Amino acid sequence: MTGIDDLPVRDELRGKSPYGAPQLDVPVRLNTNENPYPLPEALVERITERVREAARDLNRYPDRDAVELRTRLAAYLTDTSGYEVGLANVWAANGSNEVIQQLLQTFGGPGRTAIGFEPSYSMHGLIARGTGTGWISGPRHEDFTIDLPAAEKAVAEHRPDVVFITTPNNPTGSAVPAETVLALYEAAQAAKPSMVIVDEAYIEFSHGASLLPLLEGRPNLVVSRTMSKAFGAAGLRLGYLAAHPAVVDAVQLVRLPYHLSAVTQATALAALEHTGTLLGYVEQLKTERDRLVSELLAAGYEVTASDANFVQFGRFEDAHVMWREILDRGVLVRDNGVPGWLRVTAGTPEENDAFLDAVREIKKEQGS
Amino acid sequence: MTGIDDLPVRDELRGKSPYGAPQLDVPVRLNTNENPYPLPEALVERITERVREAARDLNRYPDRDAVELRTRLAAYLTDTSGYEVGLANVWAANGSNEVIQQLLQTFGGPGRTAIGFEPSYSMHGLIARGTGTGWISGPRHEDFTIDLPAAEKAVAEHRPDVVFITTPNNPTGSAVPAETVLALYEAAQAAKPSMVIVDEAYIEFSHGASLLPLLEGRPNLVVSRTMSKAFGAAGLRLGYLAAHPAVVDAVQLVRLPYHLSAVTQATALAALEHTGTLLGYVEQLKTERDRLVSELLAAGYEVTASDANFVQFGRFEDAHVMWREILDRGVLVRDNGVPGWLRVTAGTPEENDAFLDAVREIKKEQGS
Repeated sequence: MTGIDDLPVRDELRGKSPYGAPQLDVPVRLNTNENPYPLPEALVERITERVREAARDLNRYPDRDAVELRTRLAAYLTDTSGYEVGLANVWAANGSNEVIQQLLQTFGGPGRTAIGFEPSYSMHGLIARGTGTGWISGPRHEDFTIDLPAAEKAVAEHRPDVVFITTPNNPTGSAVPAETVLALYEAAQAAKPSMVIVDEAYIEFSHGASLLPLLEGRPNLVVSRTMSKAFGAAGLRLGYLAAHPAVVDAVQLVRLPYHLSAVTQATALAALEHTGTLLGYVEQLKTERDRLVSELLAAGYEVTASDANFVQFGRFEDAHVMWREILDRGVLVRDNGVPGWLRVTAGTPEENDAFLDAVREIKKEQGS
Repeated sequence: MTGIDDLPVRDELRGKSPYGAPQLDVPVRLNTNENPYPLPEALVERITERVREAARDLNRYPDRDAVELRTRLAAYLTDTSGYEVGLANVWAANGSNEVIQQLLQTFGGPGRTAIGFEPSYSMHGLIARGTGTGWISGPRHEDFTIDLPAAEKAVAEHRPDVVFITTPNNPTGSAVPAETVLALYEAAQAAKPSMVIVDEAYIEFSHGASLLPLLEGRPNLVVSRTMSKAFGAAGLRLGYLAAHPAVVDAVQLVRLPYHLSAVTQATALAALEHTGTLLGYVEQLKTERDRLVSELLAAGYEVTASDANFVQFGRFEDAHVMWREILDRGVLVRDNGVPGWLRVTAGTPEENDAFLDAVREIKKEQGS
């Protein structure tokens, strides 16, 4: 039987597996940082209306430049950060993964390198591999914050073309201070002209503010965002970035023409009309996230500080054994491969109760 | 003012422009091979229903493997070609451009090369560039059919990792005989194990049959398809491929997780329920395409044989001057950069009449 290795696939793909969390059918799924709140019915209806309209023109290519959508995304960023960006500063694609892929095709690629400070969002390294960009794993402190002197040293030594900073960081949860980002931006520019990508996928859940204002006067800085989390629209696959207009021009050299479908644009526009309601859910999730942190601590677990819609908790001699123990109680959390730690997404109050019951029970059994 | 060239973009992108036909606001647009027939209202309603359902779960990631959609696409291919393919043979992505990008990331990429026989679909070469794959421009005869001995020689000499064969070819229009594809497949395998990608974006408009049956016993062959043309759904961005299951497994090593949104999957599934109606439009377009060919000939133009929903016509000392003359009469056709030739998409009977009136008038003026 012919298998992958019988095909002329690239050498670096041999023996690899596709990325993706195990998809298991369990009562409580807190493993992929989805927003547990379904869209409000009024928004579902608005999506339906907008898509009906788009479907009547579906025989035509979509707006290649997604002008209306980018304008509305820019207004959302301006409204929520206080830092003014416009159409020319914003670009959108099918999920922030595609945004990152386009950035790496433009500024990374064969003969170039990117650095990330790990553990972090593992797709950065995987997309680097997929685009032929060399990947450098940068350091963190024991507590998972960025070790700035060590990070600056790594940047000076490796002179990467692209620097990833994820804030709040996934899977560990904590936000990166603006000073750290600024210092790394300076270090990166000192080493060679290079792009710094600040991945703010979870920023709406943060105790602190977005780093969008850092874009001022820094054409080599990019802030990437997504509608998957705060907008409760993981199924929509809409990622976007804000940057100097030259960056937006540059990614258009590699974007696939008409990459963003008319139904995706219509659905995203509908969701942007309901920002107020959706950000209300974000507030509820922040409260639940903080409850998860305090209850995990009260139950005798360690947690890392979280500015996201998930919490990293530990420590376990064998995190995978613990993952299985929790799963046996009907709750799916994520083993991101960080030794000693697991990650739980903030769900609805009921889902979080189920999770907390499970981990309290396990602690009790272990104590007995 | 900071521009693209002030950013650390890849050298090969410097001085380049984004791909895309000029988007001009004229009465008759016959430049991008769109299907001129809007979706029937019953299908618009079905899309609306399916998307409403999908929107209720939009906070969850979509089916990463698009199982229902791939199963339905496989059934469509089986029904229309008589060659049986199933879920395991089919993969889908955001437009055939993304399908091709995934194939090149898997089987091409840095240090590897791909060949196409030009003029052909120019995105093949552009996506090669975007994925770091070296591009080889293969030969054609004067009449734009593939010069098989010269093509075989080019394959033997360059030993490409990926061979593109577009049938019907875009922008020239004619289908490639199965014997030519088979000979090139053999030549490619003799040179080195390599993938042969048969791009059948326009196959539903062909006088001849799909080459899907050639997949039998050829694990290094891929047939790529799209819903943009025959399904009248350019705005949907749904491309797909059929191949040996190992190929489908392999592209999953590079696909971005959850690349295909829930609304895209829902919309495509709705369209697949209306295949009969949509293929009825295809028959009308084939009739109109044939009328364009005969009327262009009657008016004193040359045409190349067409199996697609467009016709290449000429010859002109300066094709761009002719393009402008037609545009001045309110009809937008495409200058694909093939010296002496232009391309017109088969539109509605009224649109085609407007085009034919324009080119007849131009001929008359030139004769006077």
